[in-house]
Amino acid sequence: MTTRIVELRKGILKKNDELAALLRQRYEDAGVLVLNLVSSPGTGKTTFLERTLRELLARGARAAALVGDLETDNDARRLAASGAPVRQINTHGICHLDAEMIAKHLEGWDALGPNSDLAVLDYLFIENVGNLVCPSSYDLGERIRVALLSVTEGEDKPLKYPTLFNSADAAIITKIDLAAACDFNRDLAVKNINEIRPGIRIFEVSAKTGAGMDAWLNFLGETRSKTK
Amino acid sequence: MTTRIVELRKGILKKNDELAALLRQRYEDAGVLVLNLVSSPGTGKTTFLERTLRELLARGARAAALVGDLETDNDARRLAASGAPVRQINTHGICHLDAEMIAKHLEGWDALGPNSDLAVLDYLFIENVGNLVCPSSYDLGERIRVALLSVTEGEDKPLKYPTLFNSADAAIITKIDLAAACDFNRDLAVKNINEIRPGIRIFEVSAKTGAGMDAWLNFLGETRSKTK
Repeated sequence: MTTRIVELRKGILKKNDELAALLRQRYEDAGVLVLNLVSSPGTGKTTFLERTLRELLARGARAAALVGDLETDNDARRLAASGAPVRQINTHGICHLDAEMIAKHLEGWDALGPNSDLAVLDYLFIENVGNLVCPSSYDLGERIRVALLSVTEGEDKPLKYPTLFNSADAAIITKIDLAAACDFNRDLAVKNINEIRPGIRIFEVSAKTGAGMDAWLNFLGETRSKTK
Repeated sequence: MTTRIVELRKGILKKNDELAALLRQRYEDAGVLVLNLVSSPGTGKTTFLERTLRELLARGARAAALVGDLETDNDARRLAASGAPVRQINTHGICHLDAEMIAKHLEGWDALGPNSDLAVLDYLFIENVGNLVCPSSYDLGERIRVALLSVTEGEDKPLKYPTLFNSADAAIITKIDLAAACDFNRDLAVKNINEIRPGIRIFEVSAKTGAGMDAWLNFLGETRSKTK
């Protein structure tokens, strides 16, 4: 039984990786920077992304988002408040997004026009299902995988969920406005992130106060310039 | 492919359910109250459980814990500070505990003596891997499934992760000392929990200040009396 499961899992991941590679090529051809945001539920992905979208739009960039949840379109509605086009993906019990769900939801999305043309965008953000484990194994073809961690969660999360942090290209520490109230040990958190993924870019932000958002937005701009 | 996966998943869950039923009988025969604690990473399961164990021991109860994590024995060490026997289960990439892991870790656990006799305990707590999705599907034979939600996570989590809340016997709102700093809407959270699982027992606690712990400990005592 175990052998069959492992083989089937490998088969699923292989199929996903193949489709993700096609998506990655499609993103590159269109010159759109695609980011996959992964964190625990409650880290503040949606609030952070809403502010990111809003500020990118204010800078004249073209940005959109796909957002995954088991149920409800709460997050799509919250993100749409930014003014950016947003499409909800409901996974109905599946604990992660996969490349097939992304490919499917890029089709017929009015944000991309009648030809589903990604070149109309500068940035596409994918907000994954809140889960620190399973999304790590599913490549969505993204250029940048972002691991988010809030100050309320505890500094040891990178050590306890190494797969995500080890596969991430950037780490965001969110809700820094609550750092004092939570006795957050910033140096320990940064040390633990670096232990799992040495040299990773780390941003410390509060989507509530706006602290740290500029550094993050500049990073996005620079990374996209290199994509083109 | 999809059909094969669904069938295999059903097979795995059926096998788990059968083993969980045996465990449930074993717990009942031993007169031990077993609880399965499930939440997102960072909700404060470990801090809450450490305080619960410590206070139970102070009341003269015999309590122990199994704790699941992908990697590290950090949580076992933190829980052991309570004075209760604790055993770590490392799942190495698996995003939930299952009945087989529990059965395996009940054997050879010095807390239970040479015959792995559960009757030496009044309470056995199982702290699951931090994940709001997958642990919901795996029965561990527990009498009480506890869903935890911190005030920092957002009031809409029960609606977005209905499977867990729908299968829970008790809900705990943690970190209430941070409620004001997070603009936590208590009434909305309670309403959302009740929408998914009408009439569920809800406890509001701070493991830091001790607020709400008495009601929780009394509930444990009453539930255990009914078990015997």
